Amino acid sequence: MKLPSKNDIKIAYNLIKDLVKHTPIFTSSTLNNMFDTKLFFKCENFQKVGAFKFRGACNAILNTDKDNLKNGVATHSSGNHAQALSLAAKILNIKSYIVMPNNSPKVKINAVKGYGAEITFCEPTLSARESTLNQIVEQTKAEFIHPYNNFFVICGQGTASLELLNEINDLDIIITPVGGGGLLSGTLIYSKNFNPKIKVYAAEPFGADDAFRSIKSQIIQPSMEPKTICDGLLTSLGELTYNIINIYIDEILLVEDYFTIQAMKLIWERMKIIVEPSASITLGAIIKYNEMFKNKKVGLILSGGNVDISNINYFN
Amino acid sequence: MKLPSKNDIKIAYNLIKDLVKHTPIFTSSTLNNMFDTKLFFKCENFQKVGAFKFRGACNAILNTDKDNLKNGVATHSSGNHAQALSLAAKILNIKSYIVMPNNSPKVKINAVKGYGAEITFCEPTLSARESTLNQIVEQTKAEFIHPYNNFFVICGQGTASLELLNEINDLDIIITPVGGGGLLSGTLIYSKNFNPKIKVYAAEPFGADDAFRSIKSQIIQPSMEPKTICDGLLTSLGELTYNIINIYIDEILLVEDYFTIQAMKLIWERMKIIVEPSASITLGAIIKYNEMFKNKKVGLILSGGNVDISNINYFN
Repeated sequence: MKLPSKNDIKIAYNLIKDLVKHTPIFTSSTLNNMFDTKLFFKCENFQKVGAFKFRGACNAILNTDKDNLKNGVATHSSGNHAQALSLAAKILNIKSYIVMPNNSPKVKINAVKGYGAEITFCEPTLSARESTLNQIVEQTKAEFIHPYNNFFVICGQGTASLELLNEINDLDIIITPVGGGGLLSGTLIYSKNFNPKIKVYAAEPFGADDAFRSIKSQIIQPSMEPKTICDGLLTSLGELTYNIINIYIDEILLVEDYFTIQAMKLIWERMKIIVEPSASITLGAIIKYNEMFKNKKVGLILSGGNVDISNINYFN
Repeated sequence: MKLPSKNDIKIAYNLIKDLVKHTPIFTSSTLNNMFDTKLFFKCENFQKVGAFKFRGACNAILNTDKDNLKNGVATHSSGNHAQALSLAAKILNIKSYIVMPNNSPKVKINAVKGYGAEITFCEPTLSARESTLNQIVEQTKAEFIHPYNNFFVICGQGTASLELLNEINDLDIIITPVGGGGLLSGTLIYSKNFNPKIKVYAAEPFGADDAFRSIKSQIIQPSMEPKTICDGLLTSLGELTYNIINIYIDEILLVEDYFTIQAMKLIWERMKIIVEPSASITLGAIIKYNEMFKNKKVGLILSGGNVDISNINYFN
């Protein structure tokens, strides 16, 4: 199994840098004072499609053989990867096929449609998603782009850390959320090879702790009936992401939704930006494990900002 | 009556530039495509205390005679000016006295308290506010800083346009909200003297149209039972702001809350930033009067982001 290197992430950056948004890094003196630390928020909620996923989708398409691309790309996803892949495909003038569970939020279905993808609906189970995708791939010969367990997707996600460390090169710690592990893997490879002294922590929902259990037991554990408001962090690790995380991770910090909601409220109220729960969990880790972060320079990757604002009741 | 000049705004900028936040200018290709225009959002929602008001408060304090300042500053306000003045006073190590109506939102009372101001509550009427303030000023000899009808406050608010035009110097149009007219006055003076060809429009709530009526009738009209979600735009013009607006304004555009809510939803959803209704009205004007803005470069001053997020029901 070939793992990506820091140089692979640099190559990805040069390939995608004119397609993706160079997102800003925000700071907040209020939050720094509250937690006695220096926080640097990498705002991937401002990325195209509202999430870092666009980086990996672009890099994966650009690294696919042109002959294979003529039939388009395909994936199954109800979330940000579906939007990311369909927009990247649209921009690069390639056909895209997305398998979506028939209970996907209408707002996400409309976004994917808007990017010109051909949607196939299926029952909302993993087996239905996979078998439907297999049929689509067989019929269309489209190239399957896995949302995270893909060499080039991981390299693309790593470019967020590359931009972060280019600007703030003396960070002590970086925190990312972990779901399937694509963002975490790219972050680990880039930052640990940039400076091995940087600690990298993953924030994982207490109610969806499969990555924590996987690293502890040294074998991939499936996500079993996850219960969390972090709807982007429900998936299990893949072979590739598991192996990368296992090599480099300092610690996986479990964070209860209670802290994530507090964090999200602080970010919305004090920083005036919209982040989704799966991004807020990084600040949730700072709230819960405050001692670990005192007097440190900490980078937090705010992974996305896709929230259904017609239906906000997190703070009630 | 001495009106501020463009140079007065430059002087204000040099005085306050290390105290205020140099806020970023955001763009959105999605919104540009939707409205067939080029929009540049000056993000004063990211300003300290979450609103442009901090600029004027700093400049007013810094221009007050030192002898007068030893007794502190005072104002009456239930909103952003109270927070702005008390934080500016705190930073400059000056005592502040704020008269607040006893029905002010708890979140704002707590913010003002947090900045160390001495609060006096009064009945929620303009006459009670004014008479209570007079008592406080008499007792304390504190310097009264009016929220908008003040030469130096207006100069401070004008620095938002100075920063905007420093970065985007070929704007065709600038839109600001209008309440008491401080931000609009500063914007008019700076931008009309920067380039007389720039059109400046004010966006005013349809249900609080006193500025529109004042300019039409050529005499200050009081705000009578205003009805709008734009809670920052309920006040009437003052002598100073009326005169400036009357000289320079191109047009006051009345905007129904219906458009302001649509605009706010677009800004939250597409730009992932939190703005209050009184700021969103500028994009509301673009939605309502779309034809006027086609193929133009338009600067919008997003005046603030102070929303009670525990209680969001704009989009239900």
